[in-house]
Amino acid sequence: MAVRALWFRAGSLYLLDQRELPGRTVVRRLTRVRQVADAIRSMMVRGAPSIGVAAAYGMVLARSEGGFSSEQAAELLRSTRPTAHDLFVGIEVVRRAWEDGEDVRKAADRYRDEVVEECHRIGIAGAPLLRKAKRVLTHCNAGALATVEWGTALAPIRVARSEGAELFVWVDETRPLLQGSRLTAWELSKERIPHAVIVDNAAGPFMRTGQVDAVIVGADRIARNGDFANKIGTYEKAVVAHENGIPFYVAAPWSTFDPLCKDGDSIPVEERQAEEVTSVAGRRTAPRSSPARNPAFDITPAKYVTAFVTPDGVVRPDDLAKLLGARAVLRRLRGRPRSKRER
Amino acid sequence: MAVRALWFRAGSLYLLDQRELPGRTVVRRLTRVRQVADAIRSMMVRGAPSIGVAAAYGMVLARSEGGFSSEQAAELLRSTRPTAHDLFVGIEVVRRAWEDGEDVRKAADRYRDEVVEECHRIGIAGAPLLRKAKRVLTHCNAGALATVEWGTALAPIRVARSEGAELFVWVDETRPLLQGSRLTAWELSKERIPHAVIVDNAAGPFMRTGQVDAVIVGADRIARNGDFANKIGTYEKAVVAHENGIPFYVAAPWSTFDPLCKDGDSIPVEERQAEEVTSVAGRRTAPRSSPARNPAFDITPAKYVTAFVTPDGVVRPDDLAKLLGARAVLRRLRGRPRSKRER
Repeated sequence: MAVRALWFRAGSLYLLDQRELPGRTVVRRLTRVRQVADAIRSMMVRGAPSIGVAAAYGMVLARSEGGFSSEQAAELLRSTRPTAHDLFVGIEVVRRAWEDGEDVRKAADRYRDEVVEECHRIGIAGAPLLRKAKRVLTHCNAGALATVEWGTALAPIRVARSEGAELFVWVDETRPLLQGSRLTAWELSKERIPHAVIVDNAAGPFMRTGQVDAVIVGADRIARNGDFANKIGTYEKAVVAHENGIPFYVAAPWSTFDPLCKDGDSIPVEERQAEEVTSVAGRRTAPRSSPARNPAFDITPAKYVTAFVTPDGVVRPDDLAKLLGARAVLRRLRGRPRSKRER
Repeated sequence: MAVRALWFRAGSLYLLDQRELPGRTVVRRLTRVRQVADAIRSMMVRGAPSIGVAAAYGMVLARSEGGFSSEQAAELLRSTRPTAHDLFVGIEVVRRAWEDGEDVRKAADRYRDEVVEECHRIGIAGAPLLRKAKRVLTHCNAGALATVEWGTALAPIRVARSEGAELFVWVDETRPLLQGSRLTAWELSKERIPHAVIVDNAAGPFMRTGQVDAVIVGADRIARNGDFANKIGTYEKAVVAHENGIPFYVAAPWSTFDPLCKDGDSIPVEERQAEEVTSVAGRRTAPRSSPARNPAFDITPAKYVTAFVTPDGVVRPDDLAKLLGARAVLRRLRGRPRSKRER
């Protein structure tokens, strides 16, 4: 892969510092669980599947540095960000191995391999959906940076391209932290996939005027009824796609699906500091006396989703609950601890 | 008024440089028509009614500096920005006075007074619509800066407040040029009107979760059928308001209505330079190899408009064509030259 978000070697977790992209490529070496928690909170590493894997390795570091019970380490990592379900799954997988006296490093590696392999399968499952789409819109970054390798939303684009499809990608810049223009555009540039960056406001008119054939996004948590949380702005794009009859796809590995979460209202939405809105690139843009609100995610109701692209195929929202009920994933996850804000 | 966008005194046009706000309050003195054209093009002055008045005074400067025919001066000013209809009306009013041997300064003053007075009447007409609304969302800046005084979207908010209504304003930051966080928040701060700045992406979820009671925006051009152009992002807010049963109002003086324009498809939409999208506050945010698209406006179809707030009252989109047909405004404007991109 041209892009890899993180790797573990000789007792250290290495992260590509996503806050520095696209200007600088900086790799950080982390050796302590607290550093991993800070990296997740500060969005040095971000994207639901990537933070799940980072947290899994955070558990490995906690185990080797000592001084933490498995539950203490898990709670430290769980407290970093409330919305992405993958975070809790990644932590849980290693916590169980730890408590069962198994090799935690092997458990984390297995989890990472599973995420990467599931993303590849998302690409294979989703590519046929894009075969007729010439121009695809995506929001935020659901690429390799967000998922260790491959991506979720970007995986079908990568696979379709490798099969010869001529795709053009509209990249929403994704305020406030600009993961679209900084990260998605960087990934697409590296792979020479034709694209154009637009302000989030411009997605609507390009949809209305027939210049978008499909929308594909990732997710931070998908409830049993198909409502899902994703980066702020996803809801507006979904409504406008629906209004214009444009297919809207949500691509995610199984760790993003939360079978214990009934609907979107049960998903905790993180609100981050106001300065992310009132300043841009370190420069104040709003008056000092102006307050701001900064929810980092929004909830999109299932009715706006054409289909979920999963590692095991394309699933309509109506079939989701049934499928999740049937899947082993439900059994595997049942009983996992929930984040504080959910309880 | 606490805020005034421009004034004419002793042969000079004075403009508050809107690119410098909210950080610095800089007044520019212009004495030549080319300076006025540059000020409009560079968005030193912006907002449809304000650029109409600035252009009217630009014609006055052209007449006094000499070396231009009335048509040459008009064409120079018309070429600055294609979308706002007020620009063409402001130019035309003074061109006719010039050609008829009338006092051009008086014609420009009359036009300015008319715009200001119409905005005040918009405030009076629109205030009752907001009496039950506690939380109002607005996009871009349709305040005093955009209209010399009062504002269009902000006028009903100002009048409702002066009548004792307790209003809270959600301010979309309005990428790429941040007229919401830079200008609308600045106006509201000066008048101590409670507000919060949000990224454009956040308007949708606040609407979906019942935290927005009404949306009110200005316009750059309103076609005969009620389709209208306004700052990029307006279309998405209108669709999402419609989807959530939230009233969506468009406030504008008569100079913004274009009775010769059949529908939204006939409105020319300006595309500005890519750097406005790929850089923020002078700092590159996207990779250098990433192209960008930057339409400055979008078209919102009439079906999403609950009502237009005009100087003469509240008008449903269905009644607009009839009203425009009946109004003297139609006769006054008939035969005016159109911008190049329209012809």
